Amino acid sequence: VLPTHLQELITLLSRLPGVGERTAQRYALFLATGRDDLCASLGESMGRVAHNVGSCTRCGNIADRPEDNTTRALCSICQDTKRDPSLLCIVHRVQDLLSVERSHAVRGYYFVLGRLLSPLEGIGADQLPVEELKQRIRLNDSEVQEVLIATPPSVDGEATALLLSQQLKPLGVSVSRIASGVPHGGDLEYADPVTIGRAIAGRRDIE
Amino acid sequence: VLPTHLQELITLLSRLPGVGERTAQRYALFLATGRDDLCASLGESMGRVAHNVGSCTRCGNIADRPEDNTTRALCSICQDTKRDPSLLCIVHRVQDLLSVERSHAVRGYYFVLGRLLSPLEGIGADQLPVEELKQRIRLNDSEVQEVLIATPPSVDGEATALLLSQQLKPLGVSVSRIASGVPHGGDLEYADPVTIGRAIAGRRDIE
Repeated sequence: VLPTHLQELITLLSRLPGVGERTAQRYALFLATGRDDLCASLGESMGRVAHNVGSCTRCGNIADRPEDNTTRALCSICQDTKRDPSLLCIVHRVQDLLSVERSHAVRGYYFVLGRLLSPLEGIGADQLPVEELKQRIRLNDSEVQEVLIATPPSVDGEATALLLSQQLKPLGVSVSRIASGVPHGGDLEYADPVTIGRAIAGRRDIE
Repeated sequence: VLPTHLQELITLLSRLPGVGERTAQRYALFLATGRDDLCASLGESMGRVAHNVGSCTRCGNIADRPEDNTTRALCSICQDTKRDPSLLCIVHRVQDLLSVERSHAVRGYYFVLGRLLSPLEGIGADQLPVEELKQRIRLNDSEVQEVLIATPPSVDGEATALLLSQQLKPLGVSVSRIASGVPHGGDLEYADPVTIGRAIAGRRDIE
């Protein structure tokens, strides 16, 4: 019943994360029946993102692709010379980088892994960008003194943190890990035993 | 922190139904960081839908926009001459039309209202396409004999059905309403009292 162009749009939309056939149809019908020009605007916007937005060649964050193809893309964080070059924060995904940035707790630079070690999904150590990370740390005559591993406190995140710590310590940097415990505003009554266990194991003296 | 083009995409995506800032950012980052060309394909697909897909000038369903601007757009259902011209089914939205079509229970034609009477949202009788509907019924020397009102069994849907019934009966057509009751596979134990009440009020003799 639906026009071919619309059916095609539904198929493409259902490739977005968490979007099934039904949600994709809902979006497509909304776009096709809308009275304003959202569909055209969104199409043009995606075209611009596809052509102008890429990955930062230094840290893997989202970055504007340079007009000329000779210069390498650098994100706004890597371009910011006022940051602390001694601290490098390692995250899993760009989303995580944005979350850490919102906390204003890291004034250093970042490195986006893109994936975590995952035996279940068949992702081994050779599929992690360990060499790129080592190169990044050696950049600028080793200004990096501390590597803060901010991968999630999950099985895969912990395994990745352990692997990276083993690989990076020989470079002469100190390696730290974000704390895991009861979240701010969280209730001990509803916290899971692993979180409680971590909060207790990671306890600190009150000064 | 995010490039302007990406921020712009997030703003546009958050205008989709049920999509907030957070989901929009999730979609945008997925599109911007994806290794395949989904972002570009989706952009082109939306452009095609914006330019080639419009509304059927007869029923309001989704329809291919004709190449020349002189012919009026007609959807695949209105173009289908094998359907029963004596039955006209009135629905709220295109999504509802597609649901009714999937049931194969209506072999007539459709009319999409686009909105329901809603005192709460300030939508009055003058904002419903009543004149267009009357014109549609008078089309082809009044082949329409029965108007089946398939607006949802909600307060707004019932009010709309009542209004349309009053407006259309003087045209000499019979006006019917879809049944409301316990859905197929539904459990009486969990059905709400209004649904049970309707199922009993709408009971039919077993032949």
